Amino acid sequence: MTTIKDSVHDHIEIQGVAAALLDTPPVQRLRHISQLGTVTLVYPSANHTRFEHSLGVYHLADRALSHLGIEGQQAERVRAAALLHDVGHSPYSHNVEALIHRRTGKYHDDVDELLGDGPVARVLSEHGLNPDRVAGLVAGEGELGQLVSGELDVDRMDYLVRDAHHTGVPYGTIDHERLVRELCFVDGELVLDEGNVQTAESLLLARALMNPTVYQHHVARIAKSMLRRGTEELLAATDTTAEALRRWDDNDLLVALRQCDATEAYARRLSQRDLYKRAVWAEWGAVPDEILAADHEAVGAMEQAIADEANVDSDAVVLDIPPEPSMTESSSRVLVNGDVRRLGEQSTLVNAIRAAQRDQWRLGVYAPEDESERVGAAAIRELGLDLDGARVRDVRPGLHATLDEFN
Amino acid sequence: MTTIKDSVHDHIEIQGVAAALLDTPPVQRLRHISQLGTVTLVYPSANHTRFEHSLGVYHLADRALSHLGIEGQQAERVRAAALLHDVGHSPYSHNVEALIHRRTGKYHDDVDELLGDGPVARVLSEHGLNPDRVAGLVAGEGELGQLVSGELDVDRMDYLVRDAHHTGVPYGTIDHERLVRELCFVDGELVLDEGNVQTAESLLLARALMNPTVYQHHVARIAKSMLRRGTEELLAATDTTAEALRRWDDNDLLVALRQCDATEAYARRLSQRDLYKRAVWAEWGAVPDEILAADHEAVGAMEQAIADEANVDSDAVVLDIPPEPSMTESSSRVLVNGDVRRLGEQSTLVNAIRAAQRDQWRLGVYAPEDESERVGAAAIRELGLDLDGARVRDVRPGLHATLDEFN
Amino acid sequence: MTTIKDSVHDHIEIQGVAAALLDTPPVQRLRHISQLGTVTLVYPSANHTRFEHSLGVYHLADRALSHLGIEGQQAERVRAAALLHDVGHSPYSHNVEALIHRRTGKYHDDVDELLGDGPVARVLSEHGLNPDRVAGLVAGEGELGQLVSGELDVDRMDYLVRDAHHTGVPYGTIDHERLVRELCFVDGELVLDEGNVQTAESLLLARALMNPTVYQHHVARIAKSMLRRGTEELLAATDTTAEALRRWDDNDLLVALRQCDATEAYARRLSQRDLYKRAVWAEWGAVPDEILAADHEAVGAMEQAIADEANVDSDAVVLDIPPEPSMTESSSRVLVNGDVRRLGEQSTLVNAIRAAQRDQWRLGVYAPEDESERVGAAAIRELGLDLDGARVRDVRPGLHATLDEFN
Amino acid sequence: MTTIKDSVHDHIEIQGVAAALLDTPPVQRLRHISQLGTVTLVYPSANHTRFEHSLGVYHLADRALSHLGIEGQQAERVRAAALLHDVGHSPYSHNVEALIHRRTGKYHDDVDELLGDGPVARVLSEHGLNPDRVAGLVAGEGELGQLVSGELDVDRMDYLVRDAHHTGVPYGTIDHERLVRELCFVDGELVLDEGNVQTAESLLLARALMNPTVYQHHVARIAKSMLRRGTEELLAATDTTAEALRRWDDNDLLVALRQCDATEAYARRLSQRDLYKRAVWAEWGAVPDEILAADHEAVGAMEQAIADEANVDSDAVVLDIPPEPSMTESSSRVLVNGDVRRLGEQSTLVNAIRAAQRDQWRLGVYAPEDESERVGAAAIRELGLDLDGARVRDVRPGLHATLDEFN
Repeated sequence: MTTIKDSVHDHIEIQGVAAALLDTPPVQRLRHISQLGTVTLVYPSANHTRFEHSLGVYHLADRALSHLGIEGQQAERVRAAALLHDVGHSPYSHNVEALIHRRTGKYHDDVDELLGDGPVARVLSEHGLNPDRVAGLVAGEGELGQLVSGELDVDRMDYLVRDAHHTGVPYGTIDHERLVRELCFVDGELVLDEGNVQTAESLLLARALMNPTVYQHHVARIAKSMLRRGTEELLAATDTTAEALRRWDDNDLLVALRQCDATEAYARRLSQRDLYKRAVWAEWGAVPDEILAADHEAVGAMEQAIADEANVDSDAVVLDIPPEPSMTESSSRVLVNGDVRRLGEQSTLVNAIRAAQRDQWRLGVYAPEDESERVGAAAIRELGLDLDGARVRDVRPGLHATLDEFN
Repeated sequence: MTTIKDSVHDHIEIQGVAAALLDTPPVQRLRHISQLGTVTLVYPSANHTRFEHSLGVYHLADRALSHLGIEGQQAERVRAAALLHDVGHSPYSHNVEALIHRRTGKYHDDVDELLGDGPVARVLSEHGLNPDRVAGLVAGEGELGQLVSGELDVDRMDYLVRDAHHTGVPYGTIDHERLVRELCFVDGELVLDEGNVQTAESLLLARALMNPTVYQHHVARIAKSMLRRGTEELLAATDTTAEALRRWDDNDLLVALRQCDATEAYARRLSQRDLYKRAVWAEWGAVPDEILAADHEAVGAMEQAIADEANVDSDAVVLDIPPEPSMTESSSRVLVNGDVRRLGEQSTLVNAIRAAQRDQWRLGVYAPEDESERVGAAAIRELGLDLDGARVRDVRPGLHATLDEFN
Repeated sequence: MTTIKDSVHDHIEIQGVAAALLDTPPVQRLRHISQLGTVTLVYPSANHTRFEHSLGVYHLADRALSHLGIEGQQAERVRAAALLHDVGHSPYSHNVEALIHRRTGKYHDDVDELLGDGPVARVLSEHGLNPDRVAGLVAGEGELGQLVSGELDVDRMDYLVRDAHHTGVPYGTIDHERLVRELCFVDGELVLDEGNVQTAESLLLARALMNPTVYQHHVARIAKSMLRRGTEELLAATDTTAEALRRWDDNDLLVALRQCDATEAYARRLSQRDLYKRAVWAEWGAVPDEILAADHEAVGAMEQAIADEANVDSDAVVLDIPPEPSMTESSSRVLVNGDVRRLGEQSTLVNAIRAAQRDQWRLGVYAPEDESERVGAAAIRELGLDLDGARVRDVRPGLHATLDEFN
Repeated sequence: MTTIKDSVHDHIEIQGVAAALLDTPPVQRLRHISQLGTVTLVYPSANHTRFEHSLGVYHLADRALSHLGIEGQQAERVRAAALLHDVGHSPYSHNVEALIHRRTGKYHDDVDELLGDGPVARVLSEHGLNPDRVAGLVAGEGELGQLVSGELDVDRMDYLVRDAHHTGVPYGTIDHERLVRELCFVDGELVLDEGNVQTAESLLLARALMNPTVYQHHVARIAKSMLRRGTEELLAATDTTAEALRRWDDNDLLVALRQCDATEAYARRLSQRDLYKRAVWAEWGAVPDEILAADHEAVGAMEQAIADEANVDSDAVVLDIPPEPSMTESSSRVLVNGDVRRLGEQSTLVNAIRAAQRDQWRLGVYAPEDESERVGAAAIRELGLDLDGARVRDVRPGLHATLDEFN
């Protein structure tokens, strides 16, 4: 048995298939992929990695299995899936996910690493575990898959607490120990036991507070959009394929951006936190439906059109259209007086949080500081934004910016 | 200057009038009044006192004044008020407040201690401070009074963080440092500066989660009601006056209950955590309006009537009707794009939380375990509770009980 | 199974005999005995109790048993002993221990509560456990007794961490989780496994730092000595017996001191932190051997003699002679390259810490502030203290006082 | 004023020259240099950077200046020096320092960045600060230089607490707030005020415990030695100069090692934690003086000689000779009864700690696992190690290994 010291869960015991998986290159690669990507440009102490997060998810899965009384190969499969759940991540976490997905047709949680004849599949097989079934768990399939990837999964329990610990923002401090203890299965569904509506609510509230303060902080979003844009130009300018890029780690991507003439400026700006500024910052209601529905190609075309309209270099316009907010935890199930109920039915808070998330949504157009005025005006015309009121260029948004002064 | 080590705020510097006030008997008395009263029967590590809380409130007031740029006698008055804000508390904190109020016509935050010719008033005068004006600040009067007792006061900032620290329940971990930094005055009103709607929301959410989990936990409420009942009988059976009792500390009250024949059983049960159980636990909608409006005398009469109806000893019935939930923070003011707005207007979450608080409200009738069945049935009849459904005797309420197994 | 939330260990699971013991009056009584007694007069947030500490010791014992692979009745006995280890404590923890011992001939860890026909013995018997054997474990007898009361016991692991948490002094933050994991039995001795010399050292260092900063802080010692003196006078002035007093809790003792004319002044001073000051503060080398060897009666006689010599009221002199420092952890056993070695042999630090403890030792004579000069001079003559140098009245001792300004 | 959220010090306020320096490329570069280098291979959550550490040092310097009452340009210079103190660091922190020093004749704390005509010097000049004087402070010159780089400097206060926070090892939790408050100047020397011998001791003890557990953990040392060796071969195999390399960040160095044939194997082993093992692990007393005195060239020659003797590839032998332990804090000055004393004179613990550090010293020879036996035997012969006893190949050293099982 291996014991690893973790700054969040203290001691994590690793044994069985997990100990063997730990030494495989795909798992070790996660040491070099940051958990929060560009968020460190807002919260400088948020430098934690997918590796420590994966250990944490494994640990919570192990605790949950113990409370659920699940043992043997079934438990080994879940533990393996927990440790491996991020193994398909591209560099800089979610920041370049969408881009790679468009080019390869594969999401980060696809299971190539598990199914091929690589070291992970080999270790699984040596321990008598079917890689396909482990991949299914990672994808959230089956009863136990809900524990790894579902409304009440250990993934989000770990990341909320860990992100709070490393950013210093206290809002993510859920009672994960209680959550893990109160899980049970009723009719094949993972539910929280009696008396835990509030425990479930606290998970939603934590995410609702961490979202604008940390995950969607505008500075992190600007940097993330610049990184996405730079990576696109890297793929266009070099013979690097999206397939290859998704196996890189953060070091590889950053140095590649530095070494390529077409992207060197982005790399320098990202490395030195010399970021674009918000030229437009528009609420949900201000944005026409067809803009909301734009795919990646359409976004590129709009960026070019705005640049032309503003008469600036095409690199000087980055358009950022986040997806519509969703809140899967609202379908979390909780036992209430013996009945399984969805949290969305039971909790008065859930719909409020859902509405608040839409309030917080913003479309962004970003540009170098001295061109942002011109780019903003051009973007409003090109995108047909509803000019009614201050919303369109609301650079100090009430619900949104924390530590704004740091921009 | 005195420096005091605090487990929440680390080092607290005390100087000026506060250092002199610290040594007065009314402030030292707070060492012997627990912050959360009977909550320690649910959370055994919650043994913190009004004294350390008062130091914390003083500290946050001092920090806020420094950020607001307020100095001199004006600041000294606020610091004095912060340190003194709980000096009028009766023993066991809020648990016997209402009782004493009924008998003396005075609330805990009345200002007798400050206005009389006692040591506190003497120290204030020696430092050139008018006791009346300090008393006004404690009562929340004036611009700066809002800082001591208002929607965004330092009192609740300290108690949320401190109660979380000592109970171990993580929900109270607000970003108090940020709250203190972001306060400003606009047109004589204390408001949070731009970009802090969410900071204000987090304060409400913290209280919304701490409330049912900690402050209103049913075990704490049962014990609190038994303590209220025992204290009433103590006043009836002895020549102790309510005036005298409110100057006692926790030690005095507990020992007095032990030494009096009429109350010795309550004292034993409270000391040994051998508490009554819930005979009835009814939601807001199940309770007739006249019951909700009952005053202290009416409650006593109902307890007697239920006991008669159930044919049990009159000591065996304790009725607990909490006041209607309020949420003063919802009128907290926040700057949004240059305008002062009330949080209740700006935040989608606020109304949801208000509704959730009413969902969590419960009327309780408590009785010894082996009589609770009989008392419950009698209470439903006597109080005319609406018998529709499981709500009336919902002993495992979804939104409510945490750590239920500990009852 | 009962789960209790603890501010130090988070969730503590209680089951089996421990759950039944928890509800007995002798265990519940520990809720009303503070862990650190008068230390709260230095560190205002240190209001934790023997009850939460006992839960913590139970928890660590349970963890250690699990790592050691010990199960069944043997483990139940150890868990019971861990929960019960402080059940014989007198009020105000160690502060009045010595006094009661002198009068009753029994130490706090005597086992009256366990052996009699009280509720604890009854619960033990009902669970098939022999009270005598549990009492033996509490006294540290046998292999497993070392876990409850020995050089590496879970008692001190809990109190160091808990006292650090509640005082805010960081020095007690040992790696208790690691200590518990690394325990093993070799030839019937509890030892730390290979690679843990430093883990053992950290336990000693933590205590070496907490000792002068917290446990032996001069303000706590002054108050403790005044409490000891007041309790003696209470026993002399009333018909309370030492036997009865040792079953009291803190509330009982404090109120009794308030209600007795002979001790009311001590009670007021202790309640209001209006303490005596140091009249003499003398190092080990300055004190004659016969003074060091004085028993309780001799101390009383010396106090009287000093008072006579100084021409002050006899209540105005309190003499405090701490026992010679010991350091039992230095005989902790650690595996080094397969051999069991005593830490004292292996660690260069251990002897240094032993020497440092003697450096920190001080004899104290305390008196009301305006008489302390006169009392000090009288005490030096009466006790025959070696007048060489500043040591005798060293009121700002380098190795000793922390947060001195708070006196 | 900029406010930055930090996971250790909560909110850090940046203003004046520091705010301007923050945006310079040399300071932003520190975002990409890890604080603990290869230590993350032992403690996976230790991914913090020199950037957040520099902010922390700035913050503590600012607090100390405020307590010392130092203001104006003098304070600005110190704050600038604190923020800049690590700006000359080479990639991977101390891991490749010695190597670069040998090749460039410059230490990491040389002041090229400050003195040249780069952006840092420009910002300093614009704020009226002389770059030379700031450089002097970084080098510890003058009264105030002691605060930045001296026995009681804010650098080590920050790193102890920060490294504890991120590794999860509790031993570094000093009372840094108290240390900062108690600093004062006496006759031009920075000393700790009365009553702080123990505060000073705690700083030493923290480092004494963190050293073997974290900084000198054998796994971190193995990886560091492999990194040093790989970097040497990179410089030999490519036209990269040592001058250029020291301006790289961690990304640059790791990718360069991956891209160079001669070093690709080292890069892969380091990235995947597939490290060499200890072939020899020898105590101080076992090593001949001339080996201890070996310079970099001599080390290379010995590695080659051992490889030849063992008949293995020359890459398969890495020799690691740490410098003799020193303990500069032992000359820290503390006020004791009005006299300035050196801690080494005053504290019984200091000499013990010094001795313990030498006990913990180990020479290491590392090799791939399946060749380590052969390499070990060859190294003992070649280095002339004293074969007396188990010390030479003590792979489970008592005082040393923590979490050994993780190797």
